[in-house]
Amino acid sequence: MDYYSSQISKLIEELSKLPGIGNKTAQRLAFHIINMPEEQVERLSSSIRDAKHNVHYCKECFTLTDQELCPICRSQTRDHSVIMVVENPRDLAAYEKTGKFDGVYHVLHGAISPMLGIGPGDIKLKELMMRLQTEEVKEVIIATNSSLEGETTAMYISKLIKPTGIKVTRIASGVPVGGDLEYIDEVTLLRALEGRVEL
Amino acid sequence: MDYYSSQISKLIEELSKLPGIGNKTAQRLAFHIINMPEEQVERLSSSIRDAKHNVHYCKECFTLTDQELCPICRSQTRDHSVIMVVENPRDLAAYEKTGKFDGVYHVLHGAISPMLGIGPGDIKLKELMMRLQTEEVKEVIIATNSSLEGETTAMYISKLIKPTGIKVTRIASGVPVGGDLEYIDEVTLLRALEGRVEL
Repeated sequence: MDYYSSQISKLIEELSKLPGIGNKTAQRLAFHIINMPEEQVERLSSSIRDAKHNVHYCKECFTLTDQELCPICRSQTRDHSVIMVVENPRDLAAYEKTGKFDGVYHVLHGAISPMLGIGPGDIKLKELMMRLQTEEVKEVIIATNSSLEGETTAMYISKLIKPTGIKVTRIASGVPVGGDLEYIDEVTLLRALEGRVEL
Repeated sequence: MDYYSSQISKLIEELSKLPGIGNKTAQRLAFHIINMPEEQVERLSSSIRDAKHNVHYCKECFTLTDQELCPICRSQTRDHSVIMVVENPRDLAAYEKTGKFDGVYHVLHGAISPMLGIGPGDIKLKELMMRLQTEEVKEVIIATNSSLEGETTAMYISKLIKPTGIKVTRIASGVPVGGDLEYIDEVTLLRALEGRVEL
């Protein structure tokens, strides 16, 4: 790629290391960046550095934050006796967007996957159990993904928590709202049937 | 988006300003960046800044470079009497990848488009004509895109150059190699027919 200047090649190389960014997209982004206003380039460059330097896990729920505790764990208006367990901060964000959950979270940073060699010790599970011992918790809602790994993790966690007497629930799986039945896979359809509720 | 820390939100915001990067992708990239090794983050951040600060147009052909002249214009082994005119540096890169063109380039940075209000004065056309006056040029190959704008630009340039007596050519359009005829639009098929060569 020496038909670009070394500075552009370096930028393209670094950009193409990002997930989902191939060489073509990296080129397009690089040329766009070169044509962006000076201040915007500065903001992009420093926001990358700042985020890496200042962002770490919340001491309580392990989501990403730039303070000791994340805004949700710090909040007085949230119900700290209900913990929703999610796989990653994006899932937390997805539920926050609904605006309907007023409990707190626990971010596992992964899911148990024997295939990928990820065991219970590789996710923030010990930390969840510690919270259940030290905090007054009434319910743990397991909101791991509806994948093989997510389900395995949900089963594992529920078995771990049940002896403590704390209520453990799992978010429902079924047909997505607006979903067209004919395009939905059989497993989901079966789940929707099993989870049917009386009207 | 205050369920993320402000530093993450800032990074997501800056990333989502890039072309083709929506909010979801920006989130994914931001979390990836936070989990990248320190040195890689540093390299990404500084390569963005460095590219913007040090890259400008080549004095000769107007491609992007971090020196006064780009490597191609500086090269002694390239044929400086043949100039290929392209719309942007990516097109230059595309032809360089073939490894079969040993002339030099001229980057227009756009194409004439009455629809978008881009006239001949908005692209590096005056600069091309200057080169033809000061350099010993035998042939100008017009390799603008095969779009309406690219064709308009090609026609305009050829009319401009013809009076000087310099040979002007246009890259062939036709069926792409490996292209399946039934999926190719009529205009391309017609072009391929018109441009047929004897075997």
